[in-house]
Amino acid sequence: MFKILKKSKTSQARAGVISTQHGLIHTPAFYPVGTKATVKGITPAQLNEMGIEAVLCNTYHLFLRPGDQVVKKFGGLHKFMNWQKPIITDSGGFQVFSLGLGLEHGASKIPAADLEARKKRNAGVEKFTKITEDGVYFKSFLDGSKHFIGPEESMKIQENLGADIIFAFDECTSPFSDHEYTKEAMERTHRWAARSLKAHKRKDQMLFGIVQGGEFKDLRLESSRFIGAMDFDGFGIGGSFGKFRKNVKNILDYSVEYLPENKPKHLLGIGSVEDIVEAIRRGIDTFDCVTPTRLGRNGTALTRKGNLNMKSGRFALDKKPIEKGCGCYTCTNFKRGYIRHLFQSGEMLAGILTTIHNLYFMEKLMCGIRKDILNGKF
Amino acid sequence: MFKILKKSKTSQARAGVISTQHGLIHTPAFYPVGTKATVKGITPAQLNEMGIEAVLCNTYHLFLRPGDQVVKKFGGLHKFMNWQKPIITDSGGFQVFSLGLGLEHGASKIPAADLEARKKRNAGVEKFTKITEDGVYFKSFLDGSKHFIGPEESMKIQENLGADIIFAFDECTSPFSDHEYTKEAMERTHRWAARSLKAHKRKDQMLFGIVQGGEFKDLRLESSRFIGAMDFDGFGIGGSFGKFRKNVKNILDYSVEYLPENKPKHLLGIGSVEDIVEAIRRGIDTFDCVTPTRLGRNGTALTRKGNLNMKSGRFALDKKPIEKGCGCYTCTNFKRGYIRHLFQSGEMLAGILTTIHNLYFMEKLMCGIRKDILNGKF
Repeated sequence: MFKILKKSKTSQARAGVISTQHGLIHTPAFYPVGTKATVKGITPAQLNEMGIEAVLCNTYHLFLRPGDQVVKKFGGLHKFMNWQKPIITDSGGFQVFSLGLGLEHGASKIPAADLEARKKRNAGVEKFTKITEDGVYFKSFLDGSKHFIGPEESMKIQENLGADIIFAFDECTSPFSDHEYTKEAMERTHRWAARSLKAHKRKDQMLFGIVQGGEFKDLRLESSRFIGAMDFDGFGIGGSFGKFRKNVKNILDYSVEYLPENKPKHLLGIGSVEDIVEAIRRGIDTFDCVTPTRLGRNGTALTRKGNLNMKSGRFALDKKPIEKGCGCYTCTNFKRGYIRHLFQSGEMLAGILTTIHNLYFMEKLMCGIRKDILNGKF
Repeated sequence: MFKILKKSKTSQARAGVISTQHGLIHTPAFYPVGTKATVKGITPAQLNEMGIEAVLCNTYHLFLRPGDQVVKKFGGLHKFMNWQKPIITDSGGFQVFSLGLGLEHGASKIPAADLEARKKRNAGVEKFTKITEDGVYFKSFLDGSKHFIGPEESMKIQENLGADIIFAFDECTSPFSDHEYTKEAMERTHRWAARSLKAHKRKDQMLFGIVQGGEFKDLRLESSRFIGAMDFDGFGIGGSFGKFRKNVKNILDYSVEYLPENKPKHLLGIGSVEDIVEAIRRGIDTFDCVTPTRLGRNGTALTRKGNLNMKSGRFALDKKPIEKGCGCYTCTNFKRGYIRHLFQSGEMLAGILTTIHNLYFMEKLMCGIRKDILNGKF
């Protein structure tokens, strides 16, 4: 259930609450990503301490390992990973793309180096994925084994995983796909949306439909109208948008054009501060992205004044916290010079402390925006 | 200051309290090792939650990186690593051995694979260390740069690091050294002990002398008599001992033979459960070892029934905690099947959760032994 508490007068921004079986999500909200049923390097106790309300896990990865059947035997993801607050799972469609066709197009979100390694490893494999009306045949990124996921399978897997919010199965097209192919894929996604709705049995889970259409205005409007008219509990916006700019109409605007106002809207995989702010202006309620955790592990700290490279020698003697005034465990207990030493020494705690800061930073960013919306100041 | 609260009637075991500037250490105690000013993967908050009272850091590593001068600029190790309870630093002697001469003898505690890699990397370097009456010339394991540490330098470095308990500079001989060389090294260690005592200025730090003498009974007795007669605040027993056996006199017995009863005794680098129990019988109060953390990171959990390989497929569907009845964060919140999944997936949290369990296991082991001594049941 979604309740809007306050709407901005100057934009489509709103503050609200999503109620789930495992508690409330106050929106706008950012979901840390726990791809394989763990937010990398962070315990659930630490997530709780930061005030984080929900995490997003990846259906594709968990389907392959440990397997949704295994997770089900543990009583679902909440019990498996010991996270008692809301969990969201994506549909698997994006990973099937990014670890499959996206590789062939070189358009995946995977870092270039990994991409090359993966391409080499898979040399001789003719195609990673084969998309049919039924669904997607693909090879495991782990061992090359063959699998199939269609809308019915995605629903079954997500029911086994047992998240509070799940997504309809979609085809995420490559930004390099042309209008013709993107239209074809979008229409297939629409048919899959209907099949997902029909196949979904667990009514304690909210099911979100996904708007696609690539970077084409007409397709985005069409997808928004089609998916928006269906009986979903909320909506996800998938695919790529280009850069959002203030007061400039964007693919995202067309994507939400016909979505019902009273339902929650999730922007899949977008996590930069600028993009989040612009997306909230356009009526987006929730976000997920690996960026804050990935950056943190690799030595980049998010601050209000921009990113800091914590490995830099200029921090060697710096007695300041990562960010002055930040209330996170890292900033209230450790100095930049220590964190720099940990990165230089290849210590696990380096990535842990910086990830804690980055997730707290995102959480506080969202709390601040929410407060501004509630106070009519956004 | 050290106070013995209770002595065992059937052995030399005792329960006591070491008072330091940063609080109490209840003995027998096990110190987790935080080589580079961090217990790998574990936050100070997590250590506190486990009830851990003290950690041991390595002088050699911190001297090389970030440098004791840098740590001093941060106000010492306690402030640098945000650990407000007691800290112990070793003298650097063991690492000069294990990363130097020990390599040449193939007798270092470094895993064989690392050893080979390190030997190759250093191929062409004629000698890693050169020991003179003044001290030790050695090459950094980080970059091959040349350094010198003698007793006066070790004291200065350890004063800059600012631990509560520090050690006299010693030469730790290889188990492959003969009687003649071991005797020569021991006598040098005795002269260095006198110089360490003389050079040590910070009276807020307890200074421990180190008994050496290899696996030779006569040398151990001689070292014990010599070092035990000096005005140290406590004593460390260094070097190798062979396997301890119940009711069988061992090199460790000769090492403590002449040490004053009313001072604390630390056994350097020993951490197996069996050895700890036998060493406590012989009057040892405190221990440090990387084993619980190293094993935990690499997938081995300590339990009362022996070690568990958490990577094993037999745990895939196991809903039990690592150890039934264990009160640690890991065992009260996560199941073996989940931890196995994390190891299989190469997730940081795998090593973190297993390390937490292992350190808690050691802490509870020591608490149990202490309680038994206090109740006259050890």
